[in-house]
Amino acid sequence: MQTTIRTSSSPAVREDVQAAIGRLMADYAHALDDDELESWPDFFTDDGTYRLTTRENVAAGLPVGIIHCEGRGMLRDRVAALRTANIFEPHCYTHVLGPSRIAAVGDGSWRVRSNFSVYRTFETGESRLYGVGKYLDIVHAQGDGPRLRERVVVLDSRCVDVLTVIPL
Amino acid sequence: MQTTIRTSSSPAVREDVQAAIGRLMADYAHALDDDELESWPDFFTDDGTYRLTTRENVAAGLPVGIIHCEGRGMLRDRVAALRTANIFEPHCYTHVLGPSRIAAVGDGSWRVRSNFSVYRTFETGESRLYGVGKYLDIVHAQGDGPRLRERVVVLDSRCVDVLTVIPL
Amino acid sequence: MQTTIRTSSSPAVREDVQAAIGRLMADYAHALDDDELESWPDFFTDDGTYRLTTRENVAAGLPVGIIHCEGRGMLRDRVAALRTANIFEPHCYTHVLGPSRIAAVGDGSWRVRSNFSVYRTFETGESRLYGVGKYLDIVHAQGDGPRLRERVVVLDSRCVDVLTVIPL
Repeated sequence: MQTTIRTSSSPAVREDVQAAIGRLMADYAHALDDDELESWPDFFTDDGTYRLTTRENVAAGLPVGIIHCEGRGMLRDRVAALRTANIFEPHCYTHVLGPSRIAAVGDGSWRVRSNFSVYRTFETGESRLYGVGKYLDIVHAQGDGPRLRERVVVLDSRCVDVLTVIPL
Repeated sequence: MQTTIRTSSSPAVREDVQAAIGRLMADYAHALDDDELESWPDFFTDDGTYRLTTRENVAAGLPVGIIHCEGRGMLRDRVAALRTANIFEPHCYTHVLGPSRIAAVGDGSWRVRSNFSVYRTFETGESRLYGVGKYLDIVHAQGDGPRLRERVVVLDSRCVDVLTVIPL
Repeated sequence: MQTTIRTSSSPAVREDVQAAIGRLMADYAHALDDDELESWPDFFTDDGTYRLTTRENVAAGLPVGIIHCEGRGMLRDRVAALRTANIFEPHCYTHVLGPSRIAAVGDGSWRVRSNFSVYRTFETGESRLYGVGKYLDIVHAQGDGPRLRERVVVLDSRCVDVLTVIPL
C-alpha cells in the first residue's frame, strides 16, 4: 500500500533550465495581465497547442473543453477575434502562480505543472477571484529560450464566461 | 531601535537544496489537489509530525490546535478515517503557494516557511477561498530526497470545518 | 506585427542573485504578515523609495498615488504614525506572491516584478481577499544582501482604505 514519494520520481532539473522555465511562466502571466495579447502566441512554439478546459471535463475524459487552438496561426486568430469583439475591456486581471513542478521528458522538453489563481478587477475598483486551476505544460527549448509546445489550462471553476473568455 | 534585516540573518542555501525543497512543496500541494491522500504520509519522515492550528491558537500559546499527528502511522490512520467518513468528496481544492524561505538549521535539516492560499470549488462550479495561512516546516534530507520532519499549518481563518477537514 | 518573446529580451540572472532576491521578497512579505512593521524600513536602501498606487493612476499618468515615502526616515515615520493611530490591529494579513521576474539593469541593480495577492482575516475568523496587484522593484546589492532602492506597489483594486492602509 506504500506509495513512492513523487519528489524522488524524476531526476533533478538543472538550475538554469529551472530559472528559464520560471521566467517563461512569469512572463506569460505578466503579458496577459498587461493586456499584451498580441505577444501571447509568441510564448508558444510554431506548432504549439493551447487548450482551456475544466477539471470536470478532464475527469469525464472529454478531450475538447472550452478553447482549443493548434499552432500560432490559430492563436493569432483568437487574439484578433477577441480584439474585434471586445472593443472595450473594462476589467483587468492579475495572475498569481504557485511554484512550478518541472520534470525532464527528454529531447529538450520538460513537463511542467503550475497552479494559478486569477483575479479580476471591475470598473468599481473591486477585485474578485476569477478562476483557479493548473497549467499542464510541455515546454520545449528553442534557440532563444523555452516556449510552450502545449499548454492545457485546467480550470477548477465552471463559471468562466465562454463567449468573452480571455486567454488564461 | 534599528532591527537587522532578516535577509542577512542566515547563510545562503545551496541552489540544489533550494530546488529540491521547492519540488517537495509543489509535489505536496499537487498531491492534495489531485486527492492522492494515500501518498500524503510519504511526504513525511517516519517520525514526522503534522499539526494544523490557527494563528489565534499560536498567539495564545495553545500547543494543540485542530489536528495533531505524530509519525506516519497516525497520518495513515487519518487518511483512512477520512476515506471512510467522506465516501463522496464533492469539492475539489487548489493550493497556490508563495515563495519558500529556507534556512539551514544544521544536521541536514532546514527550516522552511511558505505562505499558501487554498481554494475550494463546489459542485456548482464556483470557486471560493477556503483558507489562507503559512506552512512552518522542518525539512530533513533523506537518501531519496527531502521530507517533512515537521509541518505546522498555521491557518489565518478559524472557519475550517473541523470534522471534515482535509489535510492542508 | 510579430513581437519578440519577452523571455529572451534579457540575459539570464545568476542563480545566487535570483535566490537572494527571492529571499528578500519572501522576507518582506513574512515580516508584514507577522506585523513586524519596525523592520519594514530595513528592507530598503538608505535612500529607498516606496510608493503605493493603483493601476488606474498609473494608466492615467498620475505619479503620486496613495502613499509616497522617500528614504528610510520617512518609512520609519510612517510606521510610527501607524502604531500611534492604530492601537489595536484586529486584522491580520497574509501575502501570497507569484514568481518574480528579474532583469539586470547594471551597476549591481535589478528590475524585479512580482504579482501578489493579500488576504485579510477579520476578528470573526473569516479570511477575504484584501488586494491584488504587482510589485515593481529596483533592487540593489548591498554588502549584507539585496535591498529595495524602489518599490512601487501597483494595486488593481481601488478599495483600499487610505487612512488605515498598512504597508503592502
